[in-house]
Order: sequence, then structure tokens, then C-alpha cells
Amino acid sequence: MCELLGMECNVPTDIVFSFSGLALRGGVKGPHGDGWGLALYEGAAVRTFLEPNAAAHSKLASYVRANPIKTLLAIAHVRKKTRGKVTLANTHPFVRELWGRSFTFAHNGTVRNARKLALGRFQPIGNTDSEYAFCALLAGLQKKLKAYPKTPRILWDAIAEISGSIGRSGTFNFLLGDGKHLYARCATKLCYVIRKAPFNRATLADEDLTVDFSQVTTPNDRVAVVATVPLTRDETWTQGVPGQLWVFKGGALRATLPST
Amino acid sequence: MCELLGMECNVPTDIVFSFSGLALRGGVKGPHGDGWGLALYEGAAVRTFLEPNAAAHSKLASYVRANPIKTLLAIAHVRKKTRGKVTLANTHPFVRELWGRSFTFAHNGTVRNARKLALGRFQPIGNTDSEYAFCALLAGLQKKLKAYPKTPRILWDAIAEISGSIGRSGTFNFLLGDGKHLYARCATKLCYVIRKAPFNRATLADEDLTVDFSQVTTPNDRVAVVATVPLTRDETWTQGVPGQLWVFKGGALRATLPST
Repeated sequence: MCELLGMECNVPTDIVFSFSGLALRGGVKGPHGDGWGLALYEGAAVRTFLEPNAAAHSKLASYVRANPIKTLLAIAHVRKKTRGKVTLANTHPFVRELWGRSFTFAHNGTVRNARKLALGRFQPIGNTDSEYAFCALLAGLQKKLKAYPKTPRILWDAIAEISGSIGRSGTFNFLLGDGKHLYARCATKLCYVIRKAPFNRATLADEDLTVDFSQVTTPNDRVAVVATVPLTRDETWTQGVPGQLWVFKGGALRATLPST
Repeated sequence: MCELLGMECNVPTDIVFSFSGLALRGGVKGPHGDGWGLALYEGAAVRTFLEPNAAAHSKLASYVRANPIKTLLAIAHVRKKTRGKVTLANTHPFVRELWGRSFTFAHNGTVRNARKLALGRFQPIGNTDSEYAFCALLAGLQKKLKAYPKTPRILWDAIAEISGSIGRSGTFNFLLGDGKHLYARCATKLCYVIRKAPFNRATLADEDLTVDFSQVTTPNDRVAVVATVPLTRDETWTQGVPGQLWVFKGGALRATLPST
């Protein structure tokens, strides 16, 4: 199993505080020492930092924490392998171009029979069930929609439907980014919090690191954070319902869709 | 114009010495301050470090130099924009998946009418002529070949032919990686050196940095380095002939193909 972290905001924000909490679970406070990745969007493009080893002991993860890059949309992952070797090719998040946008994906769980899914033009580079499922999701989208829809709801519904179908054969908790939205599907375990004014202090669940968000934000900032397990001990996280897809945009939950 | 750097080896090697020379040209010794990127392969997968600003002043570039990652195949680029804004989406190297492999591409020059090229299933994320040309090259490969050929020469010939066709309308110096080979096409300016036993000292052309390769290699090591302009002052670089494609594998030049 793995842990997921997503962030989606209305103003560029750094993910350092939350990523610090996640990174600790990558080998120190948690068993997720088989790799980590962080994807940071700039418009439709994304940059990734990936390492097939423990985040908690990674110099690159330390660099990323010390030199924050602000973004509207980020996806991070720490890996405890269930399927597939510990290699760069098997390190989440995975990235593919569709409709001239970078789609980014990180998964928690195991999808059975992933190799039997229809993958269309998308071929896995590694051998995880996760990457197969991501390829199948994109292939489903491409089959259903000719281009990135002008009405976003059409895309949201398509993602909910296709991922619901893939999710029937396994545990399909995931985060998906398209540069405009953060999609978060709960199969077993996922939660979110919206940070907005009035901002308060928050303390990481796994170490004594506290941030007073009122000192680092403006009153109009809104930040949605999604994680496998609550990352802080003094904020109210909303638990996901299995078989639901959340869509975040502008730091707000824009839709909760059935995905079964 | 931009500068290119590629490295292809028979044993995992770090690119720090050569990348140091290139990075200097990204804003200090050269005018290429509009972005830089470095792609490092592990098998069929690749990790990239990308920044839409000057390499010479980049903390991330310093990190990469201080924490070398060994690889068999690397492609780097420093950018002086001719077309397209300074954004992450326009920062080379570009990456796309084809046949379950990461293909990586960096370009020096300008391809005219790039927007008229047939792109198949590959859509640019940014708006550079370079990314359009890369998409057209992959689309051409996909049209010509159904899968990654068992006989590599078939792929080499296809790349030479398609890139020759694209290169007719502009300046198409490029480096292309597929995880197995480094392809280097010369339109106007490109050169290479093979480092092998007996190893000697080499000094960067742009600063007083010297490496004694005999101290950091074994007698069987072979490293091919390709660059827009020779990076060292005390090695013999072979100049490319316009309209030729080099193919490197195992740290050796395996083929020189007409590409017109």
C-alpha cells in the first residue's frame, strides 16, 4: 500500500508543509520506503521529482522541502510496493500527454487483472498494476471524448464512470491531475481538508512541525489538501465514501460524483 | 539558439563534468538563460529536471551537480528562446511515451512551419516549434513501425529518414533518446568525443575545471559525449556533417546515416 497527497489551490502555494508530513511516512514513521514522487504543475505542463527509494532519507526530497516551488496543483506519493519491482519506471506519479495536457496519476491499492484492461494507445513503461490502470483510464477517456471538453462536467463524469469501472476489480484509490482540476477517488481510504480564512495553526500528525497559516496566506487564499490519512492533528478532515470521486478546482470541492 | 549535450555509455556514468560545462553556458558564459533541462534514463524510464530559467544561477542545477545520478543515457539542454515563451511547457528535453518506452528529445535550431507537420496522436503541451517537430517525428515513427523493432537498424533508418524530411524546412539539430540508444542529428553544428582507455585529463573549455578520467574509470569504460560546441579544450572532438544522423550505443558510434 502507498500514501497519496494532493493539493489544489486558487493561488500558487507551496506544498512543503504537507509534503514534509508525507515524506516522513516514506521510511521513518511509515513503511512506505520503496519510492516517492512529487508532481508540480505549471499550466498544462508538469515537472516531476521521482526517486525509487525512501523519501525520509532522500537528499532530493530535502532539497524540494528547502526550495519550495509554488503551484496551483500538486500530486505526491510514497510507495510501499505490492506489485512490481522498486525501479524508476514503477515510481508514481505517472505522467502521460493527452489532448495536449500532462495528465498525472498516483494510486493506492491493487487493481486485479490490470493487464487485461484495454489500454488503447497508452503503454505502460513499468510493470505495476497502477500504471496499467492509469493507461486504461486515459484510453477510456480518449475513446469517450474527442478532445478536452469545453464543459468540464463532461470530463468529470467520464472520469467517474471509467474509474468506477476499473475500480470494480480491486482497490482503486487515486489522485489524478489534468492541470486544471484535482480528481480524487476513494475506494477505501481518502480524506480532504479545505484551508481558507480565517486561517489557523496546524500541526503535523507525525512530527512536531506547526505552521500558522494566517502568517503565510492572504484572506482570499483557498487550498484543498487530499491525503490517504489526515496529515495534521488539529484540523477537521472529511473522510471519503468508497465509490465516490471528488473534483477540486480553485481550492474548493466542486463536485462529488458516484464512481462505481 | 540553444545548446545540446548528450551522453551514452557502456557502464553507468555521471554527467556532472560535462553538465557543469553546459550549465555555465546557461546564463554565465553563454546567452542561454531561458531554461534548462536534464533527462536521465533508467532502463526505458526517464527522470527529468527542468527549470524555465538560467542553469548557471539555478539551485536545482547545483543540486544535480552535487548529487550525481549515474546513468547509461542522458540528454541535457540549455535554452535561448527563438520561438515560444519562457515556460515550463517550453523547456527541453521533451518526453513522450511510445511503444512502452520514454522517448526524450532536445532541439537546437528553428523548424519553419512546424505547426503544419502531421502530429498523429502526439499533441504539443507548449508552443515551441521544437516540441511540434518532436511530436511529428514520433508520429512518423508510429506510422511507419508498429512496435519497437527487434532489429534496431530498422528504427535507426526510420529516424534518419523522418528527421531528414522534417529537417528540410529549417535547422534541425537534435538529440533523441529511447532508453537504448542516443540519436544525434547534425543540421549545422554538432560534435562528439568518445572517452575510452587509455583515459586522460580533460579541461572544460569554459572554466578551469579539470577531470582526470583515469582516476574515475575502469579500463573497459566507454562514454560517448555529444555537444553543440566542444565542451573541453584538450580532447579531439569530431565535427558532424550537416544532414547526418549518429547512433550511439554502448559508448560507441554504431552508425552514421544520411538524414536529408
